Amino acid sequence: MKTMVALPLVALIAIPVALYALSDSKTEAKAPSEIAAEAPAGDWEDIPASDLLVMETAEGGQAIIQLAPEFAPVHVDNIRKIAAARWWDGTSINRVQDNYVVQWGDATEKKTLPIGVVAEPPEEYTRGTKGLEIEWLGWPDPYAKKTGFAKGGWPVGSDGKAVWLTHCYGMVGVGRNLAPDTGSGAELYAVIGHAPRHLDRNIATVGRVIAGIEFLASRPRGTAALGFYDKPGERIAIGSLKPMSAMEPGAQSAWQVLSGKSFAAYREARANRRDPFFNVPAGGADVCNIPVPVRRKPV
Amino acid sequence: MKTMVALPLVALIAIPVALYALSDSKTEAKAPSEIAAEAPAGDWEDIPASDLLVMETAEGGQAIIQLAPEFAPVHVDNIRKIAAARWWDGTSINRVQDNYVVQWGDATEKKTLPIGVVAEPPEEYTRGTKGLEIEWLGWPDPYAKKTGFAKGGWPVGSDGKAVWLTHCYGMVGVGRNLAPDTGSGAELYAVIGHAPRHLDRNIATVGRVIAGIEFLASRPRGTAALGFYDKPGERIAIGSLKPMSAMEPGAQSAWQVLSGKSFAAYREARANRRDPFFNVPAGGADVCNIPVPVRRKPV
Repeated sequence: MKTMVALPLVALIAIPVALYALSDSKTEAKAPSEIAAEAPAGDWEDIPASDLLVMETAEGGQAIIQLAPEFAPVHVDNIRKIAAARWWDGTSINRVQDNYVVQWGDATEKKTLPIGVVAEPPEEYTRGTKGLEIEWLGWPDPYAKKTGFAKGGWPVGSDGKAVWLTHCYGMVGVGRNLAPDTGSGAELYAVIGHAPRHLDRNIATVGRVIAGIEFLASRPRGTAALGFYDKPGERIAIGSLKPMSAMEPGAQSAWQVLSGKSFAAYREARANRRDPFFNVPAGGADVCNIPVPVRRKPV
Repeated sequence: MKTMVALPLVALIAIPVALYALSDSKTEAKAPSEIAAEAPAGDWEDIPASDLLVMETAEGGQAIIQLAPEFAPVHVDNIRKIAAARWWDGTSINRVQDNYVVQWGDATEKKTLPIGVVAEPPEEYTRGTKGLEIEWLGWPDPYAKKTGFAKGGWPVGSDGKAVWLTHCYGMVGVGRNLAPDTGSGAELYAVIGHAPRHLDRNIATVGRVIAGIEFLASRPRGTAALGFYDKPGERIAIGSLKPMSAMEPGAQSAWQVLSGKSFAAYREARANRRDPFFNVPAGGADVCNIPVPVRRKPV
């Protein structure tokens, strides 16, 4: 028997093109990645440039964050002001807890927040459905009566009245202390593990990392309690965290998210893999196991 | 307003002891981590030493893998033989795909498997319920009619007849090519992201990483397709991957998994956080968001 490295698990995510060339592609079910790759331009929705922030660490890593103003407007407005003031420049990533979160902010706890930041924002942990276009998934979920995606590809849960962003991989939330504190937005985290959905409705969820999450997720884990770095020297210095519009023009980038019929087909294919690797389609999918395709806008 | 680094998100996983000292611990709901920490010795079940393998990379990382012989006996028997023959020593981690898997094996594809390894094992993707003690969860799941934990703390799904291990964070599976191949077990992967449950029932799942997953999960992501390392020099050399019993006596370790009433209370607390950080208990939990507590056996 040959052991297999060239192909092994290749089919776990996408059947290589070569295999398709050997078969009739019309009769083969498409893998989710193929559906995204073949989506017409009209099914790629522009992400507002004004919702993007760029984090660059001193060691050269970059992550792009998309804000979700429709879900936590006061917190998001705070975050915009903090980024515009370049308040995070020179702060650090202070915590990397395995299978949980990467967290950053001012480790000195001495920096004064920029003028205009609301020090005690309201509890923006859920919102009403009014004004939100949501495509619901039909599968059961242990955490919410319904789950689905709001316009823009935002994963949500609902109890039928309130709606909230779900803590999927890459989602960004606001660190806070015990209630009534809700966090100002100066201390943020990104999810780097299995979705900690027990946090849903308990924290202001304000956005998602749309590029560079792999950089954050591969940082060394902190060895102090809760994954905090034990020694100050272990912290990862943030060179800058600023609005996309504050990047040099040549370093700015535009992004799109999959939507429309292609995103509907993608969701169905995530729930029912029928591409050749799979023997048994699952028959359903967890809202956080449907990673929303995002791409750089073609020039 | 003060920004918060000492405490921020502290409560996300465990309320610090100091807070409890200030309140009446009898009236405060316990966090899952506290339930595990306070569990009586009788609720810690020994993991058979004969089911443990130890991977050590040339750069010094270590991961301990527990095999699941009750779920994929032929594959597990193969893996025991491959480890005992020290076949993996000198092979490498060849793939690290973000939010998915770390995969290792023989990148040369030239090594002959040890004598006695079954080259074409049967499809051990599911098994019957007979002989398995399972504690079912009561919450809905998008992938299975029922989910729960088999004796030993193994996360499972079921359609009412068959039972299978679920692809939770840290679970180990067998890389394979297209059916009818099922993989020999020489090419393995560990899950390092949100549970890819669509793989359930499609792959032989053979165990889990009980220690050191954070080392695997923080390796640099491969930049070739599917997270394979682009250049041979990027691969992470495996110094050894062998049975625990083959370690030097002083380097051997014994492990236990939480069970009994304490594990039941832990599961309930994962689903309904009532410790002080939380405003709203979730009311349910995903089988893969109930990480099973494992510890080194106290001397």
